[in-house]
Amino acid sequence: MIYLDNAATTRPNEDALRRANEFLTEHYFNPSARYRGGESVARALKDARNAIASPVCGSDFGLLFTSGGTEADNHAVFSCARRGNAVTTSGEHSAVYESFLQLKTRGVEPRFAPLNRDGSVNADALLHLIDEKTNFVSVVHVNNETGAVNDILSIAKQIKNINPRIVFHSDGVQAYGKIPVRLSSEIDLYSISAHKIGALKGTGALIRNKKCNLSPLIFGGGQEGNLRSGTENTFGIMCFRYAAEAAFQTLEADGARMKEYRDLLWNLMDQTLFERISPIGGSPFILTVSAVGLKGEVLQRMLWDRGTAVGTGSACSSKKPFSRILEACGYDRKMLDGVLRFSFCTQTTEEEVRRAADVINLTAKEMKERLF
Amino acid sequence: MIYLDNAATTRPNEDALRRANEFLTEHYFNPSARYRGGESVARALKDARNAIASPVCGSDFGLLFTSGGTEADNHAVFSCARRGNAVTTSGEHSAVYESFLQLKTRGVEPRFAPLNRDGSVNADALLHLIDEKTNFVSVVHVNNETGAVNDILSIAKQIKNINPRIVFHSDGVQAYGKIPVRLSSEIDLYSISAHKIGALKGTGALIRNKKCNLSPLIFGGGQEGNLRSGTENTFGIMCFRYAAEAAFQTLEADGARMKEYRDLLWNLMDQTLFERISPIGGSPFILTVSAVGLKGEVLQRMLWDRGTAVGTGSACSSKKPFSRILEACGYDRKMLDGVLRFSFCTQTTEEEVRRAADVINLTAKEMKERLF
Repeated sequence: MIYLDNAATTRPNEDALRRANEFLTEHYFNPSARYRGGESVARALKDARNAIASPVCGSDFGLLFTSGGTEADNHAVFSCARRGNAVTTSGEHSAVYESFLQLKTRGVEPRFAPLNRDGSVNADALLHLIDEKTNFVSVVHVNNETGAVNDILSIAKQIKNINPRIVFHSDGVQAYGKIPVRLSSEIDLYSISAHKIGALKGTGALIRNKKCNLSPLIFGGGQEGNLRSGTENTFGIMCFRYAAEAAFQTLEADGARMKEYRDLLWNLMDQTLFERISPIGGSPFILTVSAVGLKGEVLQRMLWDRGTAVGTGSACSSKKPFSRILEACGYDRKMLDGVLRFSFCTQTTEEEVRRAADVINLTAKEMKERLF
Repeated sequence: MIYLDNAATTRPNEDALRRANEFLTEHYFNPSARYRGGESVARALKDARNAIASPVCGSDFGLLFTSGGTEADNHAVFSCARRGNAVTTSGEHSAVYESFLQLKTRGVEPRFAPLNRDGSVNADALLHLIDEKTNFVSVVHVNNETGAVNDILSIAKQIKNINPRIVFHSDGVQAYGKIPVRLSSEIDLYSISAHKIGALKGTGALIRNKKCNLSPLIFGGGQEGNLRSGTENTFGIMCFRYAAEAAFQTLEADGARMKEYRDLLWNLMDQTLFERISPIGGSPFILTVSAVGLKGEVLQRMLWDRGTAVGTGSACSSKKPFSRILEACGYDRKMLDGVLRFSFCTQTTEEEVRRAADVINLTAKEMKERLF
């Protein structure tokens, strides 16, 4: 199986699993327990917190563990968008987008900035949506459907110039551990996810500028500095730590290699059959194309039968016939129907990319010949 | 190490880990992915849902996976207590108790029923708190600090007799997989947790009577029938399934054996040093006592050094000097300071119980002699 759906989820890193295993077999204690076994687990969580945050921010930031990127996004939105209006983009993951829609029922007006054709936000249009009643702005770092990278540092800076009291959040789920970033003091909140970088589903975190006040989304025993109650998912957190360390150790070299693979895959693809959607300067981990006139979902199933797993739009919005985000990029139905997303991980090899290109070309060609 | 703090968390069941491992190494696909690999994981989740719910309820109930018991409790409270008043007990876990306190900020009046001395709720007093403005009632099934069992079936029935539109929730975290229960049609919602029965921290569920309407707590990709978004924690859920199956296979025999151990431990303890708090008819998995006049926390640390892990109050409320729940039972400061909770799991052996009794007696005696 050639697995090219790593933006949906990654295969867990075996070394991270092996290293975290002691938190299942030996250090299984509740980190709130006041005996030494519990205290030692609590220390391991503290070290993990630091190891996960420090590659992307300084000590002016803290990190609270959540059950995943979705909870981190929800926490940011519902904690900070409490009156007036809140501004985001039409290119957000559903975790931000649906939370924004929900704001209407809470007396907050959601505003959505339009996208450029590559999936990045039209930053000027976004800034024009901000007024004196804006309290919260959220801009995805890497668009999960096209790989387009928003310049969140620049956008955050411009927003703080308009009004320094606006809270700025970015969903960094497809960026963390994949592209270099250093959070500036203008970024207040940054969501990350473990299962996109070789750790487990069910673990994520919200990185928080210590100046930014948060209220809890989930109440109870007061874990995570009283901001996120519930017994900590210690095994998931330790896997996250080890997977993050592995990702950052080789981030630059991996990024360069992924860029080669992305460009190689595109160059090997039959460009009479496919149109490229992903921008040249986007995340090196994502190549999104459209097999114009064909059905991406049918192609996806045929490719699976031929040993290649690929994505279509976002795996998280499987109820829609086509992608809300790519529609917002301005593509017509024929393009939208044919979308395929190839996403890499650091285990991907050049040989796999070459074999995938062959089978993708062959399958699309066969399908086209059958139809026309 | 003799581990007698299983009400705080359990050591993961090795067989469950081994069986669930394929969801880390082979079936790691995103269950929302529309190729066969994803669909097969989605089917496994559906089977797990059924395997976890069916031992305690019929097909008139559904189950939605959450990040743990705390989230399940929060989901029930915030989804259903939206106006008027909401009634609970003073013996709730913080996940319910703190959520109820939070209701005040949302225009809902929280009401707390008093406890009997063993930690069970005074059911008559609870019923008297209900009036025509009550929309939601939550009663913990097994008190996590004393093991007292509330007769939730009878209480729910009486509440529905007063007003069938009241939503009834019970926190079943310390009951599920430990004591027999069959949810009746008067129960609307029931919270359970994986890491109390040999599965992992970071996984839980809210069992829901299909007649009961819920709104989401966390918004996004629409997973869990649009009630709980976020990529499903597949490994945690599969561990939960296998641990639950193991627990229910031997539930009755284990319960009888735990009752023997609980009674044996109490009979072996030096009753000039300890006063019993747990009721005779409580959960067989929990024995709570007070080493009156001594500090439970100091004893706990000394016992750890002598190879025995025990609890004090709830591990989840480590910021308080003594237990809010046991205070609500009416105990004085001298009793509260000395609280020790011994909690068993199915791996506990008679030999461990006998050795624990010796070291507990010896340690308390030494501590007392040093003090007086």
